[in-house]
Amino acid sequence: MPHLLTTTPHADGFRMPAEWEPHSGCWMLWPERSDNWRGGAKPAQRAFAAVAAAITLHEPVTVCVSPAQYLVARAMLDPTVRVVEMTSNDSWIRDCGPTFVVNDHGDMRGIDWKFNAWGGLEDGLYFPWDQDDLVGEKVIELERAARYAPDFILEGGSIDVDGEGSVIVTEQCLLNHDRNPGLTREQIETNLRDYLGCKTVIWLENGVYLDETKGHTDNFSRFVAPGEVILTWTDDADDPQYAISAAALKRLEAATDAHGRKLKIHKLHQPAPILITADEAAGVDHVEGTLPRTPGDRLAASYVNFYIGNGVIVMPAFDDPMDERAQSCLAALFPSRRIIAVPGREILLGGGNVHCITQQQPKALSVPLPSVRTAA
Amino acid sequence: MPHLLTTTPHADGFRMPAEWEPHSGCWMLWPERSDNWRGGAKPAQRAFAAVAAAITLHEPVTVCVSPAQYLVARAMLDPTVRVVEMTSNDSWIRDCGPTFVVNDHGDMRGIDWKFNAWGGLEDGLYFPWDQDDLVGEKVIELERAARYAPDFILEGGSIDVDGEGSVIVTEQCLLNHDRNPGLTREQIETNLRDYLGCKTVIWLENGVYLDETKGHTDNFSRFVAPGEVILTWTDDADDPQYAISAAALKRLEAATDAHGRKLKIHKLHQPAPILITADEAAGVDHVEGTLPRTPGDRLAASYVNFYIGNGVIVMPAFDDPMDERAQSCLAALFPSRRIIAVPGREILLGGGNVHCITQQQPKALSVPLPSVRTAA
Repeated sequence: MPHLLTTTPHADGFRMPAEWEPHSGCWMLWPERSDNWRGGAKPAQRAFAAVAAAITLHEPVTVCVSPAQYLVARAMLDPTVRVVEMTSNDSWIRDCGPTFVVNDHGDMRGIDWKFNAWGGLEDGLYFPWDQDDLVGEKVIELERAARYAPDFILEGGSIDVDGEGSVIVTEQCLLNHDRNPGLTREQIETNLRDYLGCKTVIWLENGVYLDETKGHTDNFSRFVAPGEVILTWTDDADDPQYAISAAALKRLEAATDAHGRKLKIHKLHQPAPILITADEAAGVDHVEGTLPRTPGDRLAASYVNFYIGNGVIVMPAFDDPMDERAQSCLAALFPSRRIIAVPGREILLGGGNVHCITQQQPKALSVPLPSVRTAA
Repeated sequence: MPHLLTTTPHADGFRMPAEWEPHSGCWMLWPERSDNWRGGAKPAQRAFAAVAAAITLHEPVTVCVSPAQYLVARAMLDPTVRVVEMTSNDSWIRDCGPTFVVNDHGDMRGIDWKFNAWGGLEDGLYFPWDQDDLVGEKVIELERAARYAPDFILEGGSIDVDGEGSVIVTEQCLLNHDRNPGLTREQIETNLRDYLGCKTVIWLENGVYLDETKGHTDNFSRFVAPGEVILTWTDDADDPQYAISAAALKRLEAATDAHGRKLKIHKLHQPAPILITADEAAGVDHVEGTLPRTPGDRLAASYVNFYIGNGVIVMPAFDDPMDERAQSCLAALFPSRRIIAVPGREILLGGGNVHCITQQQPKALSVPLPSVRTAA
């Protein structure tokens, strides 16, 4: 068992690095459950394989897969991708996986948050979630890293850090009574400070319209550099997303980060609304206890749901005129990185996108990074 | 996928190190199947955990376990043992796992032999063995090592090397028609030379009496240092083991190793015959297709089935007067190592012992070891 620590990362001199800091690799889970992924998960598996193939060009990728799908995944994934057996309930390692923290002496540790499938028995997305809840511990153990295991429900997609003391979260998610009902806003802030090594918590109200995570900021607003954030946006005042994004814009404009900086805000226009087709819905097994996929339901499509890898941005594309604009925007924000757009619709149909299905493992460095726009 | 090599270790400058050379760790599988291990495998699990606990004091141990037993193994194993998920058909990683080879430049690669459960459809010990056959590949992949995958059935327990060009095998096993019936003795020797980096193959006739592996040398005769071998022995001329060991002694006395050395031979007296009790047999699920465990059957007990770890020898004890003599013998042969005796009966009941359930991963070193009796 990785050494179980009863202290906190902050107390031990550890912090969660920004995603643009150097990685030693990326973790993913293989999609499989036919009550969430249409067509026996085959279209989703191809989409996940495309994401893995894009990232593995730039950093080592490990895909964790159930015993039943091991040989399938091995055959479908790029030969350079490492495949390891791991049981899970679904495939969102951003949320059920570990958060890695580092110090300035070249050490890395893992945080093994509690996970309740985005809402537990009250309004979680499926039951059970026991195997998902073990993913963090198992990944940390594979890396032989020491482990923090706070009594705190948190999904990695609900936080976004700049690596310099600031974190963005939403009230919709972190204050939701279905996550940590016994904790006050102040206690939750304390946990974020203690475990992520953050001094400043930037609270937005809501996340993307109809996002089934109930407000994950990784689909909505994220740091792209110290002092700079990106925000999903629409110019259509009739779209329910408009008011949500406008409210977030106000909060971000009023905010200062841990270094006292005002934030530079980049708007990233969303694609046109994407609805589940009858054919797509018909491809999903409908079982009691899993969130249904109903024809005509709008999906929470957002270009903000990209992965920042070593020298690369892997972003979802939606076969939408906005794809190109989003790609140009990200290219301007990350000038030293190659931008790879992968088809995002099949991942979106399952409830998330590229960022949700990835989890970076930072490189443990013996010197802290300077505050630069983008680290190569 | 680990890079699949179509060359051979010998051609690439790699060799299998002796077990006494430094390790980076040890691999094990968790016993589970109730048709081989009595009492739902609980007694065996305790015995395996004792082996892991002994080794983990001296080198990192990874125990691979099925999804169903993951939490059980995690709870029963020493906290310092790494537990990772891996499906298998049983728990003999010496035989179904990889053989690691190294070169003098600090590189390590894995050999992923073919495995057919000690005899395939003809007289293998169970069916199927598909998951066992994947263990080698999976372990090599976890280590991100390059992989050789010869079209050759071989169990790790059927070979023993001195790391300097010599290997001991038995005709009973390697020439058995149930392993590689299409290959001649010469072709098998060529494979051993090409994959283990050996120049000299020392052929013994048979292995331990009634050994269900049909002649594995790791239960019978092994190198303990360059130019020195150990041989299981009995002074009882009425025991069927007597003739087998006497014949091997003659072969060993006549042999020279790859360096032209005559061998110094150490006899290790076996324990008194160990028979399966009615109670033990009654604890095993009897199913078609698995070797039955019948009361009164004699088990292939041998002290030769020990593991050589960094600074340690982990040997089986049988609650027999010979235990102490074996321990003294090993202490004299490995003076720089601590000798730890663990209860071996429960492992023996499943068909093997300490060496069979372990697989060392050598430390990749950038300088070759000198030829010394025991490396610390």
